[in-house]
Amino acid sequence: MNIAIMGFGVVGSGVAELMTKNHAGITEKSMQPSMEIKYILDLRDFPDSPFCDKIIHDFSTILEDDSIAVVVETMGGLHPAYEFVSDLLQAGKSVVTSNKELVAAKGYELLTLAQEKNVNFLFEASVGGGIPIIRPITQCLAANEIDEIAGILNGTTNFILTKMITENMEMGEALAMAQHLGYAEKDPTADVDGIDACRKICILASLCFGKHIYPDQVRTEGIRDVQLRDVSYAANGGYGMKLLGVARRVEGNKLCIFVAPCLVQGHSQLASVDDVFNAILVRGDAIGDVVFYGRGAGKLPTASAVVADVIDCAKHIAKRKLLDWGAPEDGFVIDCAEVPYPFFVRGVCDCEKTAETVRGALAKQELHIENAPEGEIAFLTGEISENALRAALAEIPGFSTGSMMRVTAY
Amino acid sequence: MNIAIMGFGVVGSGVAELMTKNHAGITEKSMQPSMEIKYILDLRDFPDSPFCDKIIHDFSTILEDDSIAVVVETMGGLHPAYEFVSDLLQAGKSVVTSNKELVAAKGYELLTLAQEKNVNFLFEASVGGGIPIIRPITQCLAANEIDEIAGILNGTTNFILTKMITENMEMGEALAMAQHLGYAEKDPTADVDGIDACRKICILASLCFGKHIYPDQVRTEGIRDVQLRDVSYAANGGYGMKLLGVARRVEGNKLCIFVAPCLVQGHSQLASVDDVFNAILVRGDAIGDVVFYGRGAGKLPTASAVVADVIDCAKHIAKRKLLDWGAPEDGFVIDCAEVPYPFFVRGVCDCEKTAETVRGALAKQELHIENAPEGEIAFLTGEISENALRAALAEIPGFSTGSMMRVTAY
Repeated sequence: MNIAIMGFGVVGSGVAELMTKNHAGITEKSMQPSMEIKYILDLRDFPDSPFCDKIIHDFSTILEDDSIAVVVETMGGLHPAYEFVSDLLQAGKSVVTSNKELVAAKGYELLTLAQEKNVNFLFEASVGGGIPIIRPITQCLAANEIDEIAGILNGTTNFILTKMITENMEMGEALAMAQHLGYAEKDPTADVDGIDACRKICILASLCFGKHIYPDQVRTEGIRDVQLRDVSYAANGGYGMKLLGVARRVEGNKLCIFVAPCLVQGHSQLASVDDVFNAILVRGDAIGDVVFYGRGAGKLPTASAVVADVIDCAKHIAKRKLLDWGAPEDGFVIDCAEVPYPFFVRGVCDCEKTAETVRGALAKQELHIENAPEGEIAFLTGEISENALRAALAEIPGFSTGSMMRVTAY
Repeated sequence: MNIAIMGFGVVGSGVAELMTKNHAGITEKSMQPSMEIKYILDLRDFPDSPFCDKIIHDFSTILEDDSIAVVVETMGGLHPAYEFVSDLLQAGKSVVTSNKELVAAKGYELLTLAQEKNVNFLFEASVGGGIPIIRPITQCLAANEIDEIAGILNGTTNFILTKMITENMEMGEALAMAQHLGYAEKDPTADVDGIDACRKICILASLCFGKHIYPDQVRTEGIRDVQLRDVSYAANGGYGMKLLGVARRVEGNKLCIFVAPCLVQGHSQLASVDDVFNAILVRGDAIGDVVFYGRGAGKLPTASAVVADVIDCAKHIAKRKLLDWGAPEDGFVIDCAEVPYPFFVRGVCDCEKTAETVRGALAKQELHIENAPEGEIAFLTGEISENALRAALAEIPGFSTGSMMRVTAY
């Protein structure tokens, strides 16, 4: 059996390396007599790579070669990845991808096409790097109604938050360090503003709840506005702070979904996820909470997930894997600002009387730090929707809100 | 499609309940037109159960009914579970079990029989309750060479250790509390002495390393001898203490496997696993460390894993799942007392000169607690085998060893 790789960047070269290193075991587990990389598609040449003789520049070589049954797409970006993958599925080839942008935007469409053509379209590596999560959700937790899924889905922002918390670094300083270490891109927008986490929670939610959720349906907030003292207030209350992607089934079988910095319980499995690690919590009606933890990015961890999918394609070459990812549905995603949560609020009061009003009206638990600025108070509320909270705060004219974050039940 | 359940205890009744509660979703995911429980085999009658009309007492009813394609075995114990399961596989029926004793003792044999008959023998629920672990290891991590697997595999002992650590309870008191809460049996031997954890690490190791490992090949130590002050010494050094099952590939492609209380790094994902929760760490060459966390026991979590396997059997009714679990191999498991580890040692010195000798010869880091008994010292060693350590300690006549535990690298 022959495979092709499209995109010889970090992940693509990791796939080639891993398939070479663990070739015997991978071939055996694939139940194929042989398993070889025949082509690697890239715009560039790689004269010094051990795979240089496999590099090609013309996509049609792969498309038209009948000996290629499985194609790995590790190019990233929506175009031309989308066109290439569509053509390959159309031609009856299975596709494995690590491209979260592609899956979040076109998952339903490409899965439907794969179904029509009786081939596989697999994307374990698109969420959580090497952490097994897609397959556990779709298979191992199949007996459950999933009520909620919440994940630390972006290693870069988790690294930044970890540095802020453990080393008292300001956000800008921690970002510069992440860039220096190669964890963050020069343009860190996709990470820092939550766009990357948004794509991943869309993929997870689409799988858990069976309807395609698009990134533009998700209220997305990054970590740019997180202040070091919010982290301190949270820590003093026994909470950690994490950038989470959350998808939660709410009354009437609707979905509340968002990406935002949240307070998590200090003793929880999510609170202890540090640095570039990722973790995903799934709450099912039978199983309760399960958490999957590991490296959410990186060459070989991500390649590990890609190659596991390649093995699965090889084993199921004549049999399609069923993924319960249906069409989008109008009205399924509701406005998360209407869903009650306990909130963390920090703000400034113009006088002690205002502070008393705020305390009386909203504060269930007040939080403290040393050397708080004059007039600042921070507190946790009871369950209240964001809209109701904003309205209540607006009615206290002497209070100006500094930050506001949801407090999760994990 | 019809299924039968053998054993209507905690797990068996959970399976019936879950299949009823989430019937529509389970049937859809099974890709079967219908999915019904036809028989429940038990010695007892259950006149008040909603499933009372399905209770039967004669195994041959199930064996001889051609409409039964999948049988759930939740009886526990080796006999007659082994005979029943053998007969069912022989008759061409797939079997799903939660019975770790059966799988640890007969896994290779029953998998071989299942292969001959082209049916499935699945056992996700036998390790880690509802935590997805068997399928992730065999499928999602298939591209990896697995180097090590370590798990908190027994909820009862983890509950006891948690109480000792967080509430300064003595072992006996914590055990009594676990019994009172229904977490521990009246006879707690299987839990407290590590026998349950031993069966589970055998199953995991057999899958990860491809050769059947039997419980009697595993050096097994429980938590009976753990002293509260060992926990305190460890905590002061930044370590947690957990009863771990560990299987680790060592030089020459041999296996070091044991069950014992170990010191784990205080910031690790294993250290924060409290109460009756389980967690399993898998270290692969490509993926690095991944950790799976959740409820390791209980009616519905375990039923969740059983039903996921039933769904898998239903989907693959004409196709066997490949599990890479080979025959046992002489000499594969080596004596773990010969494998170097850093150790925690606590003991009593007859005089300060002996203490100086111990420090000079073995202590890499000394640990302290308040109000340590006269002459007691505790320390961490460098990497040394247990045999070498015992020999070295024996050469210091004024020192008597109180406890000795491995320190893990996670």
